[in-house]
Amino acid sequence: MKSRLLFTLMSGSKCTRLTGALVKPVLDSVDSVLFDCDGVIWRGDQAIPGASQVINLLKESGKKVFFVTNNSTKTRKMYVEKMTTMGFNASEEEVFGTAYCSAMYLKNECKLEGKKVYLIGSNAMRDELQAVGIQQTGVGEDHISGKQMDWANVDLNPEVKAVVVGFDEHFSYTKLNRALQYLIQQPGCLFVGTNRDTRLPLEGGKAVPGTGCLLQAVETAAQRQALTVGKPNRYMFDCVASQFGVDPGRCLMVGDRLDTDIMLGSNCGLKTLLTLTGVSTVEDAEAHQKSGCAERQGMVPDYYVESIADLLPALQG
Amino acid sequence: MKSRLLFTLMSGSKCTRLTGALVKPVLDSVDSVLFDCDGVIWRGDQAIPGASQVINLLKESGKKVFFVTNNSTKTRKMYVEKMTTMGFNASEEEVFGTAYCSAMYLKNECKLEGKKVYLIGSNAMRDELQAVGIQQTGVGEDHISGKQMDWANVDLNPEVKAVVVGFDEHFSYTKLNRALQYLIQQPGCLFVGTNRDTRLPLEGGKAVPGTGCLLQAVETAAQRQALTVGKPNRYMFDCVASQFGVDPGRCLMVGDRLDTDIMLGSNCGLKTLLTLTGVSTVEDAEAHQKSGCAERQGMVPDYYVESIADLLPALQG
Repeated sequence: MKSRLLFTLMSGSKCTRLTGALVKPVLDSVDSVLFDCDGVIWRGDQAIPGASQVINLLKESGKKVFFVTNNSTKTRKMYVEKMTTMGFNASEEEVFGTAYCSAMYLKNECKLEGKKVYLIGSNAMRDELQAVGIQQTGVGEDHISGKQMDWANVDLNPEVKAVVVGFDEHFSYTKLNRALQYLIQQPGCLFVGTNRDTRLPLEGGKAVPGTGCLLQAVETAAQRQALTVGKPNRYMFDCVASQFGVDPGRCLMVGDRLDTDIMLGSNCGLKTLLTLTGVSTVEDAEAHQKSGCAERQGMVPDYYVESIADLLPALQG
Repeated sequence: MKSRLLFTLMSGSKCTRLTGALVKPVLDSVDSVLFDCDGVIWRGDQAIPGASQVINLLKESGKKVFFVTNNSTKTRKMYVEKMTTMGFNASEEEVFGTAYCSAMYLKNECKLEGKKVYLIGSNAMRDELQAVGIQQTGVGEDHISGKQMDWANVDLNPEVKAVVVGFDEHFSYTKLNRALQYLIQQPGCLFVGTNRDTRLPLEGGKAVPGTGCLLQAVETAAQRQALTVGKPNRYMFDCVASQFGVDPGRCLMVGDRLDTDIMLGSNCGLKTLLTLTGVSTVEDAEAHQKSGCAERQGMVPDYYVESIADLLPALQG
């Protein structure tokens, strides 16, 4: 067993089940652990059994723990409230959702502090933008006024410097058109999306349309690609690393999606762990591994677990 | 001049300006002429100067004339009313818009007569579907009920056999989600789009989002491609040909878009004529010609005119 373990650790073979005696040396090799949320530590409103113990024991053992999610519908504060209710030991500065990270991106990379954006998004995004000094117009319903709309001549706010697209349950043709008019008519208008997730998976195989659908609609109209903040774009890791001085080589990314979570880890040189409580399967990972396609190798995790609860024995031992 | 004309006619060279003595032999070589509408015979609510004379003289000279448009917001009847107001001699059976053609497609190819579809589209589409015995649900606004929607469990009509996407100014997240739920939850649910035009171009370089944006959003959510009825798919020509016995070799397609109109003509073996009163330019056509890419050769027209009014002298002579 010991020689097999050494072989696995030394050979660089990928997509290894993380179990038994292999868990402790892997955890010992990192100082920080990044967790995706939905499908990893909870599903919808149900915590994954054992997840809170894993998180809390990791922190007690001295690891830095961060929560990195593409979901743009909650502020850092809202995440901490949800986590606390579920028994997780978490604080606001450990939470990196795309509402917060988009605000950081717009402020630090786009220099939009004190400026205004047209926001297709949630109240949570509005709040995170406001918290860094960026005003928005657009949140909430955008009703068609009158019967025959003059779509190309809708009122635009001349102060708007960027179109920002996140999850928005009030998304509509009116908003799609308004975004297009800003992108056509406002010189130098920036175009930023929170993430490209095509679906939000729910319990029982159900799913609803994700932000990627809304972003695709706007991109198709604009004939232009948005910059996206969310995974697998490395910005979210850079956001964590710049605030906490994380060493990529001593960091583990834990997620349930190969195309976002594991790809982010690969893009940033992190160790990667797939958990099977969400979207992707071991078969998906093996298909990427066997494809011979260089880009798809980035979606092969170093390790996988059935659930992050599989880490518990090593942490309790 | 005569030898140059003969050379042009014989050599099969493409993207030739159709002018002077070249016009008559080209018109003599066809029995039927298909016209796109917006950007070809009108722009918005303004007829292209001379267009109605061209259409009316072609018909007086014994040509069959048809109107083939990807726009799904009007019934055949509405088109004839618009054309009559503008001085065109036109009848309903000559008009092939995607509202009508989608109804024909759903009836004849999908065997949905007497069945029900979920329609993202206009009242005009509803009317054309009803006229061939297909019922719909979905037209008009689809309001979010209550504050926290249970998106994955919205009410579905169990009779729905297909999701149909056309232009819809009431498009919304609610509709996008409902379309996805039909496509996920209804076994064997068909998925049909009217067309993929990304923008509707308007006067003065303005544009609004086209049906292609809405279709992309639904396709991204569904992780599945729709069958599309509109140009460049050959179904619209087949629709004309099956009703009027048109010989492709003796038919001219006139349009302002290389990617839809000219491509349709190429796909169906028609002669093709680009008019420069709309979207595409001669430079666009030449770029396709020089690309060396086989698929892009289908977007090179046989001929071009500044405006279809350039055909007038030959018709009046």
